[in-house]
Amino acid sequence: MQAKSFLPPQRTLMGPGPSDVNPRVLAAMSRPIIGHLDPVFVGMMEEMKGLLQYAFQTNNALTLPVSAPGSAGMETCFVNLVEPGDKVIVCINGVFGTRMKENVERCGGTAVLVEDDWGAPVSPEKVEDALKGNPDAKILAFVHAETSTGARSDVETLCRLAREHDCLSIVDSVTGLAGSPLYVDDWGVDAIYSGSQKCLSCTPGLSPVSFSERAVERIQARSHKVQSWFLDLNLVMGYWGGGGKRAYHHTAPINALYALHESLVILAEEGLENSWSRHDRHHAALRAGLEAMGLSFLVDAEHRLPQLNTIHVPEGVDEAAVRGELLNRYGLEIGAGLGPYAGKVWRIGLMGHGANEKNVLLCLSALEAVLADMGAVTPGRALSAARATYAQQG
Amino acid sequence: MQAKSFLPPQRTLMGPGPSDVNPRVLAAMSRPIIGHLDPVFVGMMEEMKGLLQYAFQTNNALTLPVSAPGSAGMETCFVNLVEPGDKVIVCINGVFGTRMKENVERCGGTAVLVEDDWGAPVSPEKVEDALKGNPDAKILAFVHAETSTGARSDVETLCRLAREHDCLSIVDSVTGLAGSPLYVDDWGVDAIYSGSQKCLSCTPGLSPVSFSERAVERIQARSHKVQSWFLDLNLVMGYWGGGGKRAYHHTAPINALYALHESLVILAEEGLENSWSRHDRHHAALRAGLEAMGLSFLVDAEHRLPQLNTIHVPEGVDEAAVRGELLNRYGLEIGAGLGPYAGKVWRIGLMGHGANEKNVLLCLSALEAVLADMGAVTPGRALSAARATYAQQG
Repeated sequence: MQAKSFLPPQRTLMGPGPSDVNPRVLAAMSRPIIGHLDPVFVGMMEEMKGLLQYAFQTNNALTLPVSAPGSAGMETCFVNLVEPGDKVIVCINGVFGTRMKENVERCGGTAVLVEDDWGAPVSPEKVEDALKGNPDAKILAFVHAETSTGARSDVETLCRLAREHDCLSIVDSVTGLAGSPLYVDDWGVDAIYSGSQKCLSCTPGLSPVSFSERAVERIQARSHKVQSWFLDLNLVMGYWGGGGKRAYHHTAPINALYALHESLVILAEEGLENSWSRHDRHHAALRAGLEAMGLSFLVDAEHRLPQLNTIHVPEGVDEAAVRGELLNRYGLEIGAGLGPYAGKVWRIGLMGHGANEKNVLLCLSALEAVLADMGAVTPGRALSAARATYAQQG
Repeated sequence: MQAKSFLPPQRTLMGPGPSDVNPRVLAAMSRPIIGHLDPVFVGMMEEMKGLLQYAFQTNNALTLPVSAPGSAGMETCFVNLVEPGDKVIVCINGVFGTRMKENVERCGGTAVLVEDDWGAPVSPEKVEDALKGNPDAKILAFVHAETSTGARSDVETLCRLAREHDCLSIVDSVTGLAGSPLYVDDWGVDAIYSGSQKCLSCTPGLSPVSFSERAVERIQARSHKVQSWFLDLNLVMGYWGGGGKRAYHHTAPINALYALHESLVILAEEGLENSWSRHDRHHAALRAGLEAMGLSFLVDAEHRLPQLNTIHVPEGVDEAAVRGELLNRYGLEIGAGLGPYAGKVWRIGLMGHGANEKNVLLCLSALEAVLADMGAVTPGRALSAARATYAQQG
């Protein structure tokens, strides 16, 4: 069997995630391995819990990184909170809402759907109607930041409605965390999951989650065992739970956790509010440049995520060819559309470490060059518009 | 929020895993990130599949690394192959057999137990009786290399019995793969899972799995959806499956996969048989040294795994204090006992990159020094016994 070491090319990742990783995070990942029950490692985990609580703006004791990607974080929320026969109101305004429905059904629950257009936010009015019409519903589940469209929904209002109707809330903030305002405690979120590879600018593979006390009580009072042994929080709590003694559950992904810890240290150094406003600032410049090229956004300005910019592919342009050119000529990755928007939109990420002026200028220059070569845009407008926006920001 | 970068100490990991990681693997992990749908990444994944097929000695098309630790690999096998109501014969001779039983039950299956002493191998006679007594059983599940005891069971015989009774086999080889002989195709294994952090000497967090055609047919013919969306191989196959186009399922843990790829390249460079015999060689020297100190093994010589040496704690010795001294004085980690052996045994790993003469000599010297300080052994015997064994090996 012959094979060689894999030497990846240098890319700039401006898709829907994974995003560009801070070199400090890569350096942390390659530090010497220690045991997952080593007292020094346990100390690092305790510190990480505090850093995650800061990122989520919560005091929830049950705040930890699930040892697998965001989809497993989603599944952690559903398998622990949904019991067979439970009714769950699931809001669908993109790919990840449909995945929540799948999760509910695979847990033996019944999903009541609240559907909005892909690209629109979740409608609080429709949610309120669904809650009123289903007084036996136990959970409201929705996506804060839809990675498939770039739409932002109103977490505060939706979680308030859930509490008013005696429901727990499950919130997907895979793309939201650290990129857009999120206050888990103040907004009354009961269960939330995110991903390491979006606005935290860590490598993919971990999913930070947090559960309120109400949610923990529900988990501890279950009448059926959690269907997943790996994701059963009653067991995971024995390892990540309150300090001191750690019961072996599974082997933690040690070096990946070094990386997440470093990315959270970087976030704490910058400050959460500063991270949010940095995403806004660079989004404004990118938007100005894209609009100067004549490109338009899928999501209306009010509900647009700064960290994920979804734009319509101009009429007659082969979108995959454009992405191929960007990758081959500039080492630049942007994302394709999903579901009904496959072939119709591009998704441009400005996430975490990648939300910077250099990336904005590269993206605009490269996209303008490729589209101008195809005769789809008039060159020479994008950069000046972006620069003017930066100049106005001072 | 204040926190500093985490700078782990340098350890030598000789517990039951994670094991010492080859520096080449750590270097690979910190290479620049690229997208999980990037054509270059997809090429790397195809190569990885071939490398995993080599490590498992199989041509199974469905051979891939699950994006989570070994426990999730275990769960992948059970949730995909067990349907509600299915009867599964589960062999228990240690911790990981009991975990298999949990998995079966959480899938709605019925576990028929075949129990052996912890430290003994699975008894083929008892398995044959269970198969005869349960003609409606659909699966036989057992552990190749029990990480809790260091016992090796006879995969070839057990899988042959499963086939004779028209059962599929599920085999746990978390600690076995690359450390002990394993021929997935020749021995007729239907589903097998391993871990990255044992004899592959990669960081923890990934679980290589492989499924026979018979197993794939069973998965495709299921009458119930797989209860886990994240681990549903019908969906995962769309991403890892046959070359060409990759359907997005979840974001692959890119840098962790770089690391696994590198560890598999290192294995291919050495050659699988050479890796197995290296584990045997260093085990023989370690065993000689331990026995010269008067320490005895839990598992009889015939069924002992070279990569995991479980020894009785001498009468009157505080085992946790010994491990603490080894860690603090020498930066050396060995493992504690689990379950009924907690406090009664140590588990010393010689896995992958860590199966080398330097580690054997360090372990013997350090353990002898600490135990001699406690008056539990007479110093001066261990190293000469180990050296004599190496000398005999030529």
